[in-house]
Amino acid sequence: MNRYAMQHIMDSSYCFPISGKEIVIRLRTARDDIKWVQIIYESKYVFGEKQQKAFMEKAYTSELYDYFDIHLELEDTRLAYVFQVNDGEKSWFFSEDGITENYDYKLGYYNFFQYPYINRADIMERVDWMKDAVFYQIFVERFHMGDTQKDTSYINCEWGDIPHPKTFAGGDLKGITKKLDYIKATGCNAIYLTPVFQSISNHKYDISDYYSVDKQFGSNEDLKELVQEAHKRGMKLVMDAVFNHCSDRMKEFQDVLEKGRQSTYYNWFFIEGDKPDPKKGNYEMFASCEYMPKLNTSNPEVQKFLNDIGCYYIQEYDIDGWRLDVSDEVSHDFWRSFRKAIKSCKKDAVIIGENWHDAYSNLRGDQYDSIMNYAFTKACLDYFARETMDAQGLAWKLNDLLMRNSDTVNAMMLNLLDSHDTHRFFSEVGENRFKMKAALCLLYLFPGTPCIFYGTEILMPGGYDPDCRRCMDWEKANIYGEYAEIYELLNRLSVIRKRYMMAEGKVRISAENGVFQLENSSMENIIILRINNMDKDIDIKGDYQKARSCSITVEDKVHKQVEFIECGEGASKNE
Amino acid sequence: MNRYAMQHIMDSSYCFPISGKEIVIRLRTARDDIKWVQIIYESKYVFGEKQQKAFMEKAYTSELYDYFDIHLELEDTRLAYVFQVNDGEKSWFFSEDGITENYDYKLGYYNFFQYPYINRADIMERVDWMKDAVFYQIFVERFHMGDTQKDTSYINCEWGDIPHPKTFAGGDLKGITKKLDYIKATGCNAIYLTPVFQSISNHKYDISDYYSVDKQFGSNEDLKELVQEAHKRGMKLVMDAVFNHCSDRMKEFQDVLEKGRQSTYYNWFFIEGDKPDPKKGNYEMFASCEYMPKLNTSNPEVQKFLNDIGCYYIQEYDIDGWRLDVSDEVSHDFWRSFRKAIKSCKKDAVIIGENWHDAYSNLRGDQYDSIMNYAFTKACLDYFARETMDAQGLAWKLNDLLMRNSDTVNAMMLNLLDSHDTHRFFSEVGENRFKMKAALCLLYLFPGTPCIFYGTEILMPGGYDPDCRRCMDWEKANIYGEYAEIYELLNRLSVIRKRYMMAEGKVRISAENGVFQLENSSMENIIILRINNMDKDIDIKGDYQKARSCSITVEDKVHKQVEFIECGEGASKNE
Repeated sequence: MNRYAMQHIMDSSYCFPISGKEIVIRLRTARDDIKWVQIIYESKYVFGEKQQKAFMEKAYTSELYDYFDIHLELEDTRLAYVFQVNDGEKSWFFSEDGITENYDYKLGYYNFFQYPYINRADIMERVDWMKDAVFYQIFVERFHMGDTQKDTSYINCEWGDIPHPKTFAGGDLKGITKKLDYIKATGCNAIYLTPVFQSISNHKYDISDYYSVDKQFGSNEDLKELVQEAHKRGMKLVMDAVFNHCSDRMKEFQDVLEKGRQSTYYNWFFIEGDKPDPKKGNYEMFASCEYMPKLNTSNPEVQKFLNDIGCYYIQEYDIDGWRLDVSDEVSHDFWRSFRKAIKSCKKDAVIIGENWHDAYSNLRGDQYDSIMNYAFTKACLDYFARETMDAQGLAWKLNDLLMRNSDTVNAMMLNLLDSHDTHRFFSEVGENRFKMKAALCLLYLFPGTPCIFYGTEILMPGGYDPDCRRCMDWEKANIYGEYAEIYELLNRLSVIRKRYMMAEGKVRISAENGVFQLENSSMENIIILRINNMDKDIDIKGDYQKARSCSITVEDKVHKQVEFIECGEGASKNE
Repeated sequence: MNRYAMQHIMDSSYCFPISGKEIVIRLRTARDDIKWVQIIYESKYVFGEKQQKAFMEKAYTSELYDYFDIHLELEDTRLAYVFQVNDGEKSWFFSEDGITENYDYKLGYYNFFQYPYINRADIMERVDWMKDAVFYQIFVERFHMGDTQKDTSYINCEWGDIPHPKTFAGGDLKGITKKLDYIKATGCNAIYLTPVFQSISNHKYDISDYYSVDKQFGSNEDLKELVQEAHKRGMKLVMDAVFNHCSDRMKEFQDVLEKGRQSTYYNWFFIEGDKPDPKKGNYEMFASCEYMPKLNTSNPEVQKFLNDIGCYYIQEYDIDGWRLDVSDEVSHDFWRSFRKAIKSCKKDAVIIGENWHDAYSNLRGDQYDSIMNYAFTKACLDYFARETMDAQGLAWKLNDLLMRNSDTVNAMMLNLLDSHDTHRFFSEVGENRFKMKAALCLLYLFPGTPCIFYGTEILMPGGYDPDCRRCMDWEKANIYGEYAEIYELLNRLSVIRKRYMMAEGKVRISAENGVFQLENSSMENIIILRINNMDKDIDIKGDYQKARSCSITVEDKVHKQVEFIECGEGASKNE
């Protein structure tokens, strides 16, 4: 037995309640090392005298590890437990004291594992609508100009020109409202907007007034109308909360520029010396952009200022949540107060952090619900684009990613292939349609909520910022045109999510003979996604998975096939 | 290289800030597997272009693992890093993507480890006075009766009788005040009191009025006087917060008993049905004690009620902190609000949880400062009492325990050999004086704050509750008497803590030839504790560590011995 690999961490992604009486327990072992695992458990007040036993399932496998798990329903939630593991030769006990041949239940109160009590307040609640949401991310400046009456003197290019960092093309909120039916026709039912508040940049991540929609994008009324029209169509709308920093033009920073320490806002920022000096850069800022001073979110006044903004747009405009810019550089303390504020305004408002890395410490139920899942993005790039990872590697990696967080968080992860901050995925895969479609299939079937970047449906190419922020090509945006197969795929994937994934099936990810497989099985049906990213056909238990092909099969409980999608390289080459 | 063992977790006990510019990073590897480790790091905004490197120190070793660590001082605290490890044959990189032969810094933003920014609000602050505190735990009912005027009709035994669960012997707060000079003479400078509020039991863990000292123990004035007199002597006082549950006699529960759902306090408890019925036990309770209903600490009214109590005794009585009874069964959400409330009343009030198990999820800076370290207790029992663990096992175990939490938390751990909830340690070691003294040496020199249970200084014996709660034997409590050597040892240990451990040295714990060694070295001096718990003398690099002996040597920076303590079995047998 490989003792080094064995791991269990109490009150973590290895042990989390999912209701007042239900808990999920996971145990990590070395891959292919352990034959079976039993959990031995009972109320901690009687664990010394009696115990229950249950076998755990080997549910997830990564390059190094197997993860066994079990879903327990408890009468008394004051849970004590140890594991019994068998390597085919011998059984061992695994407790807080490590791996031992014997275990003394009478002294268990010193070293059993425990979940001491399921407190309702500590159960992370799922935002229900995220279950069948499919997000469409819009970089507002480049999506669509809908306001034909506005002052367009700031526009400095033709719609469709390749953008530069300072390009203004004219996209606005009215443009989005006008295209809501179009967005719905892509199969998406939720929108995530990059920032819309007053700012001199095209991206508007440097905000000078959080209470005003930038006039290039329209008015606050336009925002209200957009949300109302989206809601009429059953669509949700999430906005971008840029709370790590603001613009140096924000009146509070201007006041400090003028008055220095005498300003009531001096402690809203991190300033060295008496006055901030953009030339010296003697204050903290985003990256090294002196025009974006960092906000001191440890200051209770700033906390109130930002929480009020967060609540204002929920209460007055009825938005459905916030995506948090550069959230990992903001304190846990602030996000805790933000969550309390937001959830008390609207219980099912979603909070999505921008953490590119493992965000476990933000995803414990007290801060965000979800993050933009760039680790998923990278796995897709490594497999589809760079091909530095084979199907087995991808399966292992995705299982590792699922094990970072609780099932509750996994179910709300905002999975994405690309965004305004990356190259376009279609360009990353060398404009290979098969790879793009297969990646979309994976995106939609992987646990969590998919998010596509505007233009994905017409296979818009693009390199790094600003090239990924090109103007939406409305001439190509025709669901019956050149990209009909992409629109159709996205719609069929949305339908599969809505129709067959509601029952919250078990997801099992693996690879066989170089073919990637994701299986989602519930009491009602089973969905199987297979991807063969190799140049040869592969026999999988009698079924052939063709070279460079991807298939999704949905079967009902009597194994009748109810849906079938196939995407091959051949097909895409023909178009 | 053993890939299974390698572990680093961002924003955890593997990576924690200790000031606005300083951070500690740890990496776990298999024991004796890795020759050297370098951390490769830089501000995350320039990590793609340039990196700094530094070697890490192999600082802690457990049965399975080595832990390398480093203390970094940063200019820009937006830290990105990966590790380079060498197993003697080859170097490898270790990043969020695991162990790889090569590492592409340009794509690092996808998979470097990071501490995104040191936010002041997230730095766990040390309670400074805990550094040289030595606690004396008092079970109030059995320590000393000081009020000779009070109604003693409730007393149902002679002082010194072996206690039964319902024994009342007469101990009170005045009794403690009268003995403050005595406590100080044991070398202790902090007191932790079991509960003192209105309650019908002798232990008073079932409180019916949190605002009144139980009249058996005296008055609220007596409490005020006790705190004042303690403070006059430079002593701290910590009280017991029983917030998981209360007494069924508390007026709020009585109101629910009477009015059921009509009571405004119905939601203060967890009741199934219209009315709580002690006979049916249709409500949640501590253990299975129907006279101790569990409080619903998720209810904001209950949160306010309890936080107000917490603040009241700090603001009105000036106590120095709270020990939290059954804290692991109370929600994280409540302890977060409690910490905010308490620390805003008195920044250096200490918060000590009663979690017998790994309490990492409560010790992240947002809830408690510390816990009662029963895992340390168990390690001492396994080594000294049960002898199921040898010196090497003890060293490994203690290193494992140190790695559960940050250095900040370790420095505030309330380490103990026994308490009102365990057998007396002296009884556990078969009344062996050498073992008791050696364990005390370890208790005082291990990172954290030692806590001795009243009567330890006179080697009071005792089995499990209530036997461990015998009346203090004042006839034996004479610093010049039969136990002079224990008083002297405790005092010398306190002096060593105060005089030589303030500089926060590096602690290294190991074993050699069966002899346990703890070394605490700072710029000023080095303290070495050695324990030989075997029946033979052992040669340690030319020094003999006698059979069943323990020694503490303190050397100054020129290696001049400035203190020396030796405890042997021979000595203890002679007395």
